[in-house]
Amino acid sequence: MPATDRLALHGARVATLEGSEGYGLVENASVVWRGERIEYVGPRGAAPPAEREWEAGGALLTPGLIDCHTHLVFAGNRAGEFEQRLKGVSYAEIARAGGGIAASVRATREADEDALLAASLPRALALRDDGVTTVEIKSGYGLDLDSELRMLRAARRIGEASGQSVRTSFLGAHALPPEFAGRADDYIARICEDWLPQIAESGLADAVDAYCEGIGFSPDQVDRLFSAARRHGLPVKLHADQLSDLGGAALLAHHGGLSADHVEYTSAEGVAAMATAGSVAVLLPGAFYALRETTLPPIAAFREHGVAMAVATDLNPGTSPLASLRTAMNMACVLFRLTPEEALRGATVHAARALGLSDRGRIAPGQRADLVLWQAEQPAELAYWTAGAAPLRVIAGGRQISCVAP
Amino acid sequence: MPATDRLALHGARVATLEGSEGYGLVENASVVWRGERIEYVGPRGAAPPAEREWEAGGALLTPGLIDCHTHLVFAGNRAGEFEQRLKGVSYAEIARAGGGIAASVRATREADEDALLAASLPRALALRDDGVTTVEIKSGYGLDLDSELRMLRAARRIGEASGQSVRTSFLGAHALPPEFAGRADDYIARICEDWLPQIAESGLADAVDAYCEGIGFSPDQVDRLFSAARRHGLPVKLHADQLSDLGGAALLAHHGGLSADHVEYTSAEGVAAMATAGSVAVLLPGAFYALRETTLPPIAAFREHGVAMAVATDLNPGTSPLASLRTAMNMACVLFRLTPEEALRGATVHAARALGLSDRGRIAPGQRADLVLWQAEQPAELAYWTAGAAPLRVIAGGRQISCVAP
Ligand SMILES: [Zn+2]
Ligand SMILES: [Zn+2]
Repeated sequence: MPATDRLALHGARVATLEGSEGYGLVENASVVWRGERIEYVGPRGAAPPAEREWEAGGALLTPGLIDCHTHLVFAGNRAGEFEQRLKGVSYAEIARAGGGIAASVRATREADEDALLAASLPRALALRDDGVTTVEIKSGYGLDLDSELRMLRAARRIGEASGQSVRTSFLGAHALPPEFAGRADDYIARICEDWLPQIAESGLADAVDAYCEGIGFSPDQVDRLFSAARRHGLPVKLHADQLSDLGGAALLAHHGGLSADHVEYTSAEGVAAMATAGSVAVLLPGAFYALRETTLPPIAAFREHGVAMAVATDLNPGTSPLASLRTAMNMACVLFRLTPEEALRGATVHAARALGLSDRGRIAPGQRADLVLWQAEQPAELAYWTAGAAPLRVIAGGRQISCVAP
Repeated sequence: MPATDRLALHGARVATLEGSEGYGLVENASVVWRGERIEYVGPRGAAPPAEREWEAGGALLTPGLIDCHTHLVFAGNRAGEFEQRLKGVSYAEIARAGGGIAASVRATREADEDALLAASLPRALALRDDGVTTVEIKSGYGLDLDSELRMLRAARRIGEASGQSVRTSFLGAHALPPEFAGRADDYIARICEDWLPQIAESGLADAVDAYCEGIGFSPDQVDRLFSAARRHGLPVKLHADQLSDLGGAALLAHHGGLSADHVEYTSAEGVAAMATAGSVAVLLPGAFYALRETTLPPIAAFREHGVAMAVATDLNPGTSPLASLRTAMNMACVLFRLTPEEALRGATVHAARALGLSDRGRIAPGQRADLVLWQAEQPAELAYWTAGAAPLRVIAGGRQISCVAP
């Protein structure tokens, strides 16, 4: 159809997420869009005419879900390792045998771009068919410049193939590659001086991320990386305070970063710094679940300080093989005690903020026509079900990209 | 096609689950069936000719999954209550406002059979599209004879609509209906003397189940119910030892029951009794997860005594709104530390035993042609993913009932 045609969905219960509280529900509403943008949301009777119209039959319409933290591009998987651990093999033995993240790095380095795409696309499609219209994808299993660029190119191609918007983060500082064993400072210097200019030049990365942890990189190293990233005009985000409090959230806030992710061990000072900087706290309950962690993120403090909370899958082969953002929303409620409304905001409007995007996450004129129609009556049902039924329709940029209804 | 045509799937990695250990893997295998029954499993070269043939392209083939414990027929849902609890409303307040199981009973009593079917079928389809070819469905939200029979009829119709095999359990002793408040013994007597004969006569129930717990029915009451069920030739199963040890597993074993379900608090004596009786332990990690329980079922004791462990969703609106058996398998591994092989046996061959069925759960000549083709290489991947990608094909009784591949 011509790009200027108007499309309309009529008779939906629309959770607009407009305003700062509640679902912004509009009953028996119409949503009308032209091309990629929404033009109208409101009573059916007042909707402008459209060239093509769908009936929603009273089903629930929400903004397209946004998964703002994934590592879904990788080769191989670690199911064998998962099985070994459950048979009683220790982490140390698995590491000695070349397992853990080293296994993902080896497999990813060996895969060419087409193989990476073929291995990774089904994971993006699983997210899409569960309602995700925008997905962030990190590099970080290449750990050499060529392999990192290859991961980022595969990530961009996923968006072309799936119809989703893809936002990429360069995560060279995910782990220390074997070539730099014992020389983490040298590795960070290499990234800052040699790789970052080329990454920035390539346009393949929308942000720079790092893993700040005792088993990752130190706050000093991350500080140098972030300073370099900002010189190249790249926004920053951080895997912060997942297993211990190294002050990662405060460091991220100091750099005016988009989001601090995990944040189970973030201190009161870290929360306050995030509030001042306007950084988003990205909660990753899938990793918390898979690792059987027990220290909860400081939800009450985030609420009190008005720090926006996002929810994401952390989809990765080692610590969060979770391919459903709705299940992450459910886990955020069950394990972290978020309300269903916080979980839905966390997977829409707050997730958009965690990616630096203001054109999506709500249903309003001017916003992208990223929409999901659910076989549900109340918005709370989305987080209530663990791995619930697939959505009826998924629309991204005005075009239907997934559908189970006839 | 004629019912006598042979159908074949070629080039699969087949996890037959033959034998008592391992996955029974056969590489590059063919499976050939005629009508509902498998005729051949083995090397492609030796396969008999077939009228219709599919190529598996090396994908993994397993027996159809069997969800041996669900309450998926109900009206309404309890998402509103889930939301209230997370907003800080207490269980007591919700109960006073008519919430909890009473809300499901009220909504189910008000729904006619068509409405019950319409509300419940999508849940069965969600299970099916995730690989479930046989599903057990309990009554227990009617709590009067008419409503219980209506639930069982709706359950039978689900099988006709979804293509799955449905096995039903009469769970009149799920909770005390308001009409019998304070008179649990009278209610059990009513079931035994008045309802059970009619339930048995109707042919609508394949087994009798009960909820044995401080907040449910006492061991004495269950004992009377089970004796009556057995007089009518109906096998028994039991919600046992979920929140406390009332000796439910031993009671079930004493009656030679099919399965004791939940069993978090089952004692060593209970485990030994189950082993002697050959009863199956049905693990329900979805409820454990949703209730944030901490007492693990005695997995080591079940292994030691050779008690077969099944894994099921417990799909229900209150304590386990979980609509994916694979996610239950993942939870059984992550939360209960089952191995992926135990989880797969638990959702196939052991689940069949929990339903008293010996014609399914394995891939072998004579077994039902209930088969699932997965986008996976290793069987361990099925339990490794939390809410992973949908299967490529689901075949039940020789007929394809779900398909995402072209
Ligand atoms: Zn991550
Ligand atoms: Zn149950």
